[in-house]
Amino acid sequence: MSKSLISAAEIRSTYAIIAPHIRRTPVIEVDGSDFGIDAPLVLKLELLQHAGSFKARGAFTSLLKRQVPRAGVVAASGGNHGAAVAFAAMKLKVPAKIFVPSIASPAKIQQITDYGAQLEISGERYADALAASEAWIAASGAMPIHAFDQHETMLGQGTVGLEFDDQAQIDTLMVAVGGGGLIAGLAAWYEGRIKIVAVEPEKAPTLTRALEAGRPVDAEAGGIAAESLAPRRVGELVFPIIRRFVDKTVLVSDDAILDAQRRLWTALRVVAEPGGAAALAALTSRKYVPTLGERVGVLICGGNTAVVNFKSH
Amino acid sequence: MSKSLISAAEIRSTYAIIAPHIRRTPVIEVDGSDFGIDAPLVLKLELLQHAGSFKARGAFTSLLKRQVPRAGVVAASGGNHGAAVAFAAMKLKVPAKIFVPSIASPAKIQQITDYGAQLEISGERYADALAASEAWIAASGAMPIHAFDQHETMLGQGTVGLEFDDQAQIDTLMVAVGGGGLIAGLAAWYEGRIKIVAVEPEKAPTLTRALEAGRPVDAEAGGIAAESLAPRRVGELVFPIIRRFVDKTVLVSDDAILDAQRRLWTALRVVAEPGGAAALAALTSRKYVPTLGERVGVLICGGNTAVVNFKSH
Repeated sequence: MSKSLISAAEIRSTYAIIAPHIRRTPVIEVDGSDFGIDAPLVLKLELLQHAGSFKARGAFTSLLKRQVPRAGVVAASGGNHGAAVAFAAMKLKVPAKIFVPSIASPAKIQQITDYGAQLEISGERYADALAASEAWIAASGAMPIHAFDQHETMLGQGTVGLEFDDQAQIDTLMVAVGGGGLIAGLAAWYEGRIKIVAVEPEKAPTLTRALEAGRPVDAEAGGIAAESLAPRRVGELVFPIIRRFVDKTVLVSDDAILDAQRRLWTALRVVAEPGGAAALAALTSRKYVPTLGERVGVLICGGNTAVVNFKSH
Repeated sequence: MSKSLISAAEIRSTYAIIAPHIRRTPVIEVDGSDFGIDAPLVLKLELLQHAGSFKARGAFTSLLKRQVPRAGVVAASGGNHGAAVAFAAMKLKVPAKIFVPSIASPAKIQQITDYGAQLEISGERYADALAASEAWIAASGAMPIHAFDQHETMLGQGTVGLEFDDQAQIDTLMVAVGGGGLIAGLAAWYEGRIKIVAVEPEKAPTLTRALEAGRPVDAEAGGIAAESLAPRRVGELVFPIIRRFVDKTVLVSDDAILDAQRRLWTALRVVAEPGGAAALAALTSRKYVPTLGERVGVLICGGNTAVVNFKSH
């Protein structure tokens, strides 16, 4: 195994370090028929994680395993990674500066500043925020925490797989893909023991294009889930892990994602963000049809959305 | 034990009957500090139950344990019980007619009709809908399913306790009270092994007034959670069980309930209805303060609210 690949054993030792700081998110078994699907489903509700997504796992891993300089930490993020780094830094009393693109939602920006981090809005897309953060890192000596393409980030996200493996027996796991850190961690944990299906928005097919090209390449980065699933390309470190262990990629439309969000609320009282509902959308839109008896797990990976409004009684 | 009391053994045998039809709802352990509380909390997310509340358990129990006439079943309900009976009747292919008071929310009315039940809107409060349903039962021969004051309803709600007991070790359980069916079932399951705290809105203190009077009496029935926690009085069957096993009642303000709803969303990405957040409100408003080391369970019992809007992208 090359140095860039991560192992299940490393994910296990990472879990021992971050477990006191993260939530063990629950799974729930549901009738597929509740979602118009002919198979039982096990949903892992990772949207209940600190800061509303799995990203808290990677953030705590970097802060706890790496040497943090006095200048603190820096993240560039479409939103969820930035919120997670801000949350972990707040809990561990480390200064944090978060660079976000202007497409980040007001709700996510509010969340980042509520956690006490410094916020910088830079450019229109994730890559612009990343470039701005790099200039600041060079000037300040602060430690960057990459949203996906970093050893510790992948290890932290891989702990979702460790928990899920302990909570439910599944044959197949549906996972949304943005930069690829989550699916790389999950794939490294399961090591081919289950089928892993990557789900991407049609308008942000970063992994699909990378697999076609045989290496990470720029792809379209738009659509309803752009805030969380649309970096320009998947990472260099995540790609070999994904290519080795991921069985299939599926593209879903924005309408299918919105429909999956609505179904999660109507049938289960779960409010997912578009990126958080994308994996389910592959099933509800019949882009992925389970075989008879196939036990399918679905990762509901984020809930940072502004569709909830408690302003009045 | 008098015939009206229910036993843990009966709850266990009920669970064997309804388990294939209900969801085993998950628990999640959270730092109390996430909610401004100095104690660890275990939340049972019963709002993820079919039809959005624990009421599905009681509804399936009546439909599966009692002889259903050809005229079908009838319920009078502020909303959640009606939705649950409509859902269970749909699944078991039984006709259902649901009488709701006019304060029921458009969202709950929609839910009931989406499940294929006949809907009748009768009067302003729960008691009015109940009276209208009784007239129709006498005329039609249909089978009433009471929202709380019925043997099977209490047995079904008691299965929440069986699951929670299996999922987490707690010293204290916080439970919202409307008519008292849920807390009676839970109290019967735990049989005094843990401390059970009843939480009521200040504007709907049915149990508090009943305990003061020594019997169920009419109380104020208003406030933010009126739709689910404001029948005029607790039931005759539930009262002796509650009086025997419930340790304490706590009243919470409407503002405290709304604040608890907001905290559940901000800190955990859970959307509860007012009645579903009331038990947590007793903690967040410091009306109930756990002692050092006390392990507190909180039942988040319903999520049927209209605060979520997916209408646009």
